[in-house]
Amino acid sequence: MPHFLNTEDADFEDRFRALLSLKREDAPDVAASVADIVQDVRTRGDAALIDLTRKYDRFEVTPATLALSKAEIDAAVAKVPAAERQALQVAAERIRAYHERQKPANESWTDRSGAMLGWRWTAVSAAGLYVPGGLATYPSSVLMNAIPAQVAGVERLVMCVPTPDGLANPLVLLAAKLSGIETIYRIGGAQAIAALAYGTETIAPVDKITGPGNAYVAAAKRHVFGRVGIDNIAGPSEILVIADGDNDPDWIALDLLSQAEHDQSAQAILITTDPTFAELVVDAINQYLQVLERRDIARASWESNGAVILVQNLGEAAALADDIAAEHLELCVANPESLAGNITHAGAIFLGPWTPEAIGDYVAGPNHVLPTARSARFSSGLGVLDFMKRTTITRMTPGALADIGPAAETLAAAESLQAHGLSVAARLRRLNE
Amino acid sequence: MPHFLNTEDADFEDRFRALLSLKREDAPDVAASVADIVQDVRTRGDAALIDLTRKYDRFEVTPATLALSKAEIDAAVAKVPAAERQALQVAAERIRAYHERQKPANESWTDRSGAMLGWRWTAVSAAGLYVPGGLATYPSSVLMNAIPAQVAGVERLVMCVPTPDGLANPLVLLAAKLSGIETIYRIGGAQAIAALAYGTETIAPVDKITGPGNAYVAAAKRHVFGRVGIDNIAGPSEILVIADGDNDPDWIALDLLSQAEHDQSAQAILITTDPTFAELVVDAINQYLQVLERRDIARASWESNGAVILVQNLGEAAALADDIAAEHLELCVANPESLAGNITHAGAIFLGPWTPEAIGDYVAGPNHVLPTARSARFSSGLGVLDFMKRTTITRMTPGALADIGPAAETLAAAESLQAHGLSVAARLRRLNE
Repeated sequence: MPHFLNTEDADFEDRFRALLSLKREDAPDVAASVADIVQDVRTRGDAALIDLTRKYDRFEVTPATLALSKAEIDAAVAKVPAAERQALQVAAERIRAYHERQKPANESWTDRSGAMLGWRWTAVSAAGLYVPGGLATYPSSVLMNAIPAQVAGVERLVMCVPTPDGLANPLVLLAAKLSGIETIYRIGGAQAIAALAYGTETIAPVDKITGPGNAYVAAAKRHVFGRVGIDNIAGPSEILVIADGDNDPDWIALDLLSQAEHDQSAQAILITTDPTFAELVVDAINQYLQVLERRDIARASWESNGAVILVQNLGEAAALADDIAAEHLELCVANPESLAGNITHAGAIFLGPWTPEAIGDYVAGPNHVLPTARSARFSSGLGVLDFMKRTTITRMTPGALADIGPAAETLAAAESLQAHGLSVAARLRRLNE
Repeated sequence: MPHFLNTEDADFEDRFRALLSLKREDAPDVAASVADIVQDVRTRGDAALIDLTRKYDRFEVTPATLALSKAEIDAAVAKVPAAERQALQVAAERIRAYHERQKPANESWTDRSGAMLGWRWTAVSAAGLYVPGGLATYPSSVLMNAIPAQVAGVERLVMCVPTPDGLANPLVLLAAKLSGIETIYRIGGAQAIAALAYGTETIAPVDKITGPGNAYVAAAKRHVFGRVGIDNIAGPSEILVIADGDNDPDWIALDLLSQAEHDQSAQAILITTDPTFAELVVDAINQYLQVLERRDIARASWESNGAVILVQNLGEAAALADDIAAEHLELCVANPESLAGNITHAGAIFLGPWTPEAIGDYVAGPNHVLPTARSARFSSGLGVLDFMKRTTITRMTPGALADIGPAAETLAAAESLQAHGLSVAARLRRLNE
């Protein structure tokens, strides 16, 4: 049974808080093992990668075979059916077109004092993309991570994907090829993150690591944060659908289930003004839970974490949506733009009934790597800026320094930083000579 | 003795690598104590804050006095001398004017398929600024952290500053007042970070925490990362000056010393094409090291971490600068713009001899919270975007879904995510009815 809440119930506030703080994921604390693995890779380099890959992926690599050869990639890619190849190309093109628009502009101006001020954006030199092996190997995620890096102008883009028992997903390799990835290493887990951050004899270190992974990968990213840049730590997927009664219950049921089928820790929430519609959606979900291929996962997610919240009006819905700060927010109401204007926190918004969230997972164009677990309150989905950095620029003239230098001297003195003040004073003295 | 290197020396590459990997800071591993403190604050709330403040700051607070009262702030602020007040106002105005230009634009467009795509930027609702107590309480840092938040449109902006033995820095309080800080809590250390992240009976939790601090504060920020957003973990300050022989050695000496005087872990590096000029700078530094107020700190920094690197030409200098990826980069050469164009990685660039780095610490306008320890390879100084987040927006039409929906269905099938595909298929079926 999912959670049923009604804002008119006396205990609503308590039950809503309980829903928000539901501990959906019981992530084991693997920080200590991860620290050991990172240290092992830093100390022994390739030899550690070889041992750990034998242990965890039951696969024998050598320094020479850590990277997939061009022939291996081409052979695998050749197996991809034409329809899938074409669909991936459509996705890659649309994702690229969207992200091209995110490229930031450099700025430069001269202020009243005559100082030239501004900033410029440059790409990180090298980025590493982590792709999980096994069940959750998603070619779409390769595109979503790699294309923003490519658009940013990252010079060297590499990928790590574990190949348990030697198996690689051809569609993942094709996605890598379509998005400018230069080298693919068949390693995974914390050892792959360590190799990307610190480098080994064979693997050159990168400056930024992105991509999802299991608890070991997440802990390793947290561990190397600061040595390299990382993206957000990804949690289980979430969707919040706000729908009025004027919707097809079947569509909404499938939208909720398309998150629930990801993972039993995923969360799907429906907020509606219409109790009859809510019942129809729940009935439709129950029907699908009989037949879906991933029904066991979807049922576990829906019954533990799913929720239906009845509200009296869309104003209430907007306020709850801001508290939930959902990764995906679908607005199936008469005027979705207006409702969106009343909601501040969400990773991605899907407007109107013709915009199923799944279209954003693949081909709409916006990134599907989005903030989870209420982190949309303070962070954004992946984008071009994640692979760029801004350098500020200042050029003073003698006149500008004469104008604002004395204020700097005063503040330096107040902070007891004498050399700071003297570095300004020595120059101003020249002007008075 | 600082490090002297010459790119013509046979062992240059090794010595340069050694310089880059110099372990300047021996940060103690306090993760375990910090985890205990965070847990204590989460469990006991205000009571934990009161106990920890008594223990570490030798100061008795109550829930009612955790925040400084308006009267206390006004009384302290009234003590600030007029010159300092005016200098702080100049700084605040210039920092605000610079950061106003960083406000990002929302975008929205309709693509060929008829889909409406775009994104919008919104501010985080609440931000907490940490300000260290004791020696390194810098009013300028309050402005540099708070003004970008204020410009971003953060609704609730609070500050934590420990007041050891009850003492608060009036200029810090004035800086808070000038930059829109609503409430100032007199707590510090890991307990302050925990209170900002999780809240207590008295302190409402925030969404984003920024500001420098000691090893405990840094570890606490790493600990709460994900629950709230954090800025970069700040390391010791650094400057790289690239100067030709046509400079006043005194100016360059003072610029190098203005980093060295911060902290014995700070690093000042001079790269020059002119060996005679290098000697003159070193002589000038040695003179100042006799007389500077903070000479002991500056000497320790210069002798352990300082370096002079002789290069044969500015091309070599640019390549080394990219490897160093300095927090502050000063270019005192005939054509600094041209040299800057050949360097990719730096936190902030100061062009020409009339732009001492210290002007950027206070009044130039760009932010002085900048990436240290080579993290300019992948991260930016603090700015307005750190207090905002981007929500992507998609609105499909029936026609657009008919156009690109089939590709999404194909990819969903390839990823074995059936409900994803069905959520598109159910809508496309309606179009064919």
